[in-house]
Amino acid sequence: MHLEAIYHDAFGSYAFPLDRQRLKVRLRAKKGDLQKVEVVHGDRYTSYETGKEQIVVLEKVGSTDLHDYFEAVLKTETGRLRYVFYLSDGEKGIWYGERGFAESFFTCQPFQYAYITEQDLFEIPEWVDGSIVYQIFPERFANGNPDNDPEGVLPWGGEPKWNNFFGGDIQGIIQNLDYLADLGINVIYLTPIFESPSNHKYNTTDYYRIDPHFGDLEDVKEMVAKAHKLGIRVIFDAVFNHCGYDFFAFQDVVEKGKKSPYWDWFFVEDEPVITEPRPNYETFACNVWEMPKLNTKNPKVKKYLLDVARYWIEEADIDGWRLDVSNEVDHVFWREFRQVVKGAKADALIIGEVWHNANPWLQGDQYDSVMNYLFRDAMLEFFAKQSIGVEKFNALLIQAQMCYKDQANRGMFNLIDSHDTERFLTTCDEKEERMRLAVLFQMAYPGMPMIYYGDEIGMKGKNDPDCRRTFIWKEEEQNQEMLNWYKKCIQIRKSLPALTKGNYRTWVIRPTGNIFGIMRGTDTDQPVGVLINNSSLQQELTVPVLWKQSDRLQDLISGETYPLKNQEIRLVLKPYQGVLLV
Amino acid sequence: MHLEAIYHDAFGSYAFPLDRQRLKVRLRAKKGDLQKVEVVHGDRYTSYETGKEQIVVLEKVGSTDLHDYFEAVLKTETGRLRYVFYLSDGEKGIWYGERGFAESFFTCQPFQYAYITEQDLFEIPEWVDGSIVYQIFPERFANGNPDNDPEGVLPWGGEPKWNNFFGGDIQGIIQNLDYLADLGINVIYLTPIFESPSNHKYNTTDYYRIDPHFGDLEDVKEMVAKAHKLGIRVIFDAVFNHCGYDFFAFQDVVEKGKKSPYWDWFFVEDEPVITEPRPNYETFACNVWEMPKLNTKNPKVKKYLLDVARYWIEEADIDGWRLDVSNEVDHVFWREFRQVVKGAKADALIIGEVWHNANPWLQGDQYDSVMNYLFRDAMLEFFAKQSIGVEKFNALLIQAQMCYKDQANRGMFNLIDSHDTERFLTTCDEKEERMRLAVLFQMAYPGMPMIYYGDEIGMKGKNDPDCRRTFIWKEEEQNQEMLNWYKKCIQIRKSLPALTKGNYRTWVIRPTGNIFGIMRGTDTDQPVGVLINNSSLQQELTVPVLWKQSDRLQDLISGETYPLKNQEIRLVLKPYQGVLLV
Repeated sequence: MHLEAIYHDAFGSYAFPLDRQRLKVRLRAKKGDLQKVEVVHGDRYTSYETGKEQIVVLEKVGSTDLHDYFEAVLKTETGRLRYVFYLSDGEKGIWYGERGFAESFFTCQPFQYAYITEQDLFEIPEWVDGSIVYQIFPERFANGNPDNDPEGVLPWGGEPKWNNFFGGDIQGIIQNLDYLADLGINVIYLTPIFESPSNHKYNTTDYYRIDPHFGDLEDVKEMVAKAHKLGIRVIFDAVFNHCGYDFFAFQDVVEKGKKSPYWDWFFVEDEPVITEPRPNYETFACNVWEMPKLNTKNPKVKKYLLDVARYWIEEADIDGWRLDVSNEVDHVFWREFRQVVKGAKADALIIGEVWHNANPWLQGDQYDSVMNYLFRDAMLEFFAKQSIGVEKFNALLIQAQMCYKDQANRGMFNLIDSHDTERFLTTCDEKEERMRLAVLFQMAYPGMPMIYYGDEIGMKGKNDPDCRRTFIWKEEEQNQEMLNWYKKCIQIRKSLPALTKGNYRTWVIRPTGNIFGIMRGTDTDQPVGVLINNSSLQQELTVPVLWKQSDRLQDLISGETYPLKNQEIRLVLKPYQGVLLV
Repeated sequence: MHLEAIYHDAFGSYAFPLDRQRLKVRLRAKKGDLQKVEVVHGDRYTSYETGKEQIVVLEKVGSTDLHDYFEAVLKTETGRLRYVFYLSDGEKGIWYGERGFAESFFTCQPFQYAYITEQDLFEIPEWVDGSIVYQIFPERFANGNPDNDPEGVLPWGGEPKWNNFFGGDIQGIIQNLDYLADLGINVIYLTPIFESPSNHKYNTTDYYRIDPHFGDLEDVKEMVAKAHKLGIRVIFDAVFNHCGYDFFAFQDVVEKGKKSPYWDWFFVEDEPVITEPRPNYETFACNVWEMPKLNTKNPKVKKYLLDVARYWIEEADIDGWRLDVSNEVDHVFWREFRQVVKGAKADALIIGEVWHNANPWLQGDQYDSVMNYLFRDAMLEFFAKQSIGVEKFNALLIQAQMCYKDQANRGMFNLIDSHDTERFLTTCDEKEERMRLAVLFQMAYPGMPMIYYGDEIGMKGKNDPDCRRTFIWKEEEQNQEMLNWYKKCIQIRKSLPALTKGNYRTWVIRPTGNIFGIMRGTDTDQPVGVLINNSSLQQELTVPVLWKQSDRLQDLISGETYPLKNQEIRLVLKPYQGVLLV
């Protein structure tokens, strides 16, 4: 046994309560090393002699290049747990506790989950199950009101540049909510819409004012109300790491220097404020003078921003916040932010922007989840670039899931592209069959699929600013095949609780044919198998189906049925074909 | 290379800032597997092409049974770090980043420490360096005022029982502060002194009133003021997991049931409150009716307890709190507690009672440190019971250190016994030489040594209540040899900054002779080597000394000097002898 590869902690993503009666535990081992993992658990205050310990077998839930991961749910009445693992490799076994390995249960120092408190539970909105998110970059989505267009607005369809404008606005969104409802999505996430001189509006001038080129408070209220009627929730973008150069407080510092009451709202080296040759104040990233960094240690800044967060929930009835550059703002701030936001609307959603492992923000006290760039990385490499094979793809997905507690995984914004990246179809070299297969997989994956506006009609675009082209509204110029594909996949996802709430398990890995299959299932809903042929070969294959008792499986994409014989089905998969079997 | 055993996270105890300019990173590998570990780091926003990355070699800081641990400090100007490890086993090398292993630096996804914020820094009081703690169980330490003795008080020196009283009090402490100053300690930690019907007072009746058998507010003020004059800080015991049955709020619930405004302060199943056959309310541990558990989710309870925490700092000028059963109270509460306590006194100390791995409470947002029972376990087994050898002892110490960030390790209450355990000398089968050797080691170990009252005069006692005997004040009955040993070790510790602030490294491990050596050193202070012979054999040995440039080392215990030849010294160590070499 490779004991040096075993990993468990009684905290973080290795041990976390699902509720006051259930603790999920996770254990990592060298791939292929352990045949069986069990856990013996009981109440921390009960003697071993009372016979009240329980034995649970852990399930292998996934594997990466190097590791197997095992999980179990421990049930508790008291919320105070003590547990010891028993690991066996088929030949011999050993006990594993907080202090390490031991030959006897009685000499093995147990892991302790001291007490499951209600206050520390990680709870995210129930509505994330079944939700599909649509990301809108408002300046480029639709121009619903030409009267509020900025000066020098360019004709719709022109080439996007860092600093040009096409007139998209809130009325444009309102007028197309029916289109979005018809597409099947039920959450829209808007990049910033507060007053700002840029087209992306990540340099905020006024957090309390809708940008006049986008509309006004009444437009926003109308948008949210109409969206809600259509069953669509609305998420705004909280740009709290930095403001814009024109933000009143920064302008006051520019004007008055150290005499400004807002001096401590920022990190300015010295007066006067200068922007050349480099800004003498801290900014977003490196020397982006338009975006002075906010000092969220200052209680006044904190209050200001938390008031903003509360205001838009109360005033416009929005359903949550996406947090820009959220990994550069302190945990103290985000903990208070959560209390304010959940206090204003109990089921509001909080999604951080973190491109790397976001574990420290996903303990239950800060965000509900994050924009899932780890998922995107895997999707991009497997489907779009085909630079990794099926084993690595599987490994990356499992690795990403194992970074987090179940709750965070349930709430992920599973994107394949965004306003900050090249469009997926472009990375696919415009090979639509690759993108369609990726979308099918995205819609079968745990978390919330997120669609970047226009992807569904086959829009292309290289990196920012090219990925921010104006939406193509002329139907004859839209990729209708892609649109119908999206609608179909969305409709299927929404019809199957196993896809939104079910467990995720790897089902089939066939490296030579680039065949990959996953299984999604819950205790009560019918399981779903998804099988994809990510290759240009037609392939005939036989795969085991252990979860189904009936005599056939049906592919909900093509309608085809496959007879089940000796717990196996035989399929012929066309190049880049995916099937979704129930 | 055993890649499956490599572990690193860009958070928790594997990556933590020391200040805004320094990030400590830690990496775990299979024991003996890696020859060299390096890290290449830079600013997250700087291109690899600018030539600004830095290369740092990690130092192997310790080993357990199965693992080697490596550490380095990464210096940063911007606070935004990206880093990739390079691991080599002597034959080949591989890059290691967030996503796993890679052949090329440029294809290795870096770990990210997004931004070091001031707000999230883990800062503990400077004064922990050099502090030595003395734990007092007030009912048994000294009876300074017979007038406040409880009814039925027993003669000093009697056999302690669960429910008997001997008259110890605050005046007793005051009258013996000079004794404590002379001993050399500079922190006293008192088990609870608020009104309570028991002798231990962990079932609080009134958090705002000193138990009348102990004294009153004036006594406490006098004690703290006099202690401060002697350079001794005072820590109280915060029993906030539960109160006593007689606590006013619980009594109100007993009286009025659900009609009581305090009903939600507790977890009562139904009215009326009953205690037999088992309490119908949640208590400390299992069915301890005298200790109803407090509902710290209730904002009123929270406010009440936080006010108590602030009150005693403001009113009596105490220097911190030790937190009873702190692992069963929610993290939300402890975060607010930290803010209140540090707000009332910036350098107040917060020490949790957690007997197992306390990592979740030691992230910088809750406690400063904990009572170090992991240390005690190792000390007990190696010195007192001699049930483990020198390799396991070393492994347990390193394992305990690696659970935590440096800050928490600096602030540990390093105990060898307490009011909740058998006395160390008793576990030693009263073999004083074992205890003396343990004490020498305790005084050379990182963190704050904690002395349980009376250990220094050779007091004995089995488990609670026997470990709570009355202090022996007759000098002729005290173990003067032990007392002098304590004084000497304390004096040496306080004279050597390397022992209080220095790094810790394993120096010598000789399993057959049970010889163990550690090295403590800082960049600026002279290093100290500690070498102990934990066996009944006299042993002659030669050990390497690589840190010393002069021609001799001196043992501060015996005064003996050892010539340094070819970077080696030759010693003869008597049974259970320890030397402290400078």
